Amino acid sequence: MVQYTQDHFNASFAALSDVTRRGVLEQLARSNASITELAEKFAMTLTGMKKHVGVLEQAGLVTTEKIGRVRTCKLGVCRLEEEAAWIERYRQLWDARFDALDQVVEELKRKEKIDGRKKRK
Amino acid sequence: MVQYTQDHFNASFAALSDVTRRGVLEQLARSNASITELAEKFAMTLTGMKKHVGVLEQAGLVTTEKIGRVRTCKLGVCRLEEEAAWIERYRQLWDARFDALDQVVEELKRKEKIDGRKKRK
Repeated sequence: MVQYTQDHFNASFAALSDVTRRGVLEQLARSNASITELAEKFAMTLTGMKKHVGVLEQAGLVTTEKIGRVRTCKLGVCRLEEEAAWIERYRQLWDARFDALDQVVEELKRKEKIDGRKKRK
Repeated sequence: MVQYTQDHFNASFAALSDVTRRGVLEQLARSNASITELAEKFAMTLTGMKKHVGVLEQAGLVTTEKIGRVRTCKLGVCRLEEEAAWIERYRQLWDARFDALDQVVEELKRKEKIDGRKKRK
């Protein structure tokens, strides 16, 4: 299960790491499209678009269905729920870490002030 | 600006697409660590860890500082805020899309019921 999640995260974050693939997801969120339509929209060869769609499909972000000669793409079952949760948890850790550093800095400033006063006496 | 954001998204999502790199971020959120310590913790060569840290550094997720012979890694300024926002927006689009499909299915079911009744008459 843990390994599955890690593999899934690898695949979904890798899928999101390309501007065209993010654009395809945004497009499919509006309406289904064939590979040909997507290739035209993103000014790309059919082969190039097929590769991008393959990466999105492997990550569960897109599903495709071939009817006759047309392969139609639609959004997949992965709605990036766990990915959003991972990022949220990281952001909380990040905030906690920097809050802690802020406290250290404040403590140092306070001590410096006290030391300064002592020296002036 | 838009191009900057897209490049930044490419870099940050790519940085997150590896289990070791996600582990390094979780580790640094707890405490700073040298490259050597990270390499040991993740059972990896120094060269391998340096590469991973380089990818995280390029994405702004990690900063490093060399004091003497030790390079210390700490969390960078990028707290994945925009990435979280992108994913959130996508999830909203996803939900809206599937809600719309649900409505179409419900509408079809309703029509089928009416047609069925008409035929029985």
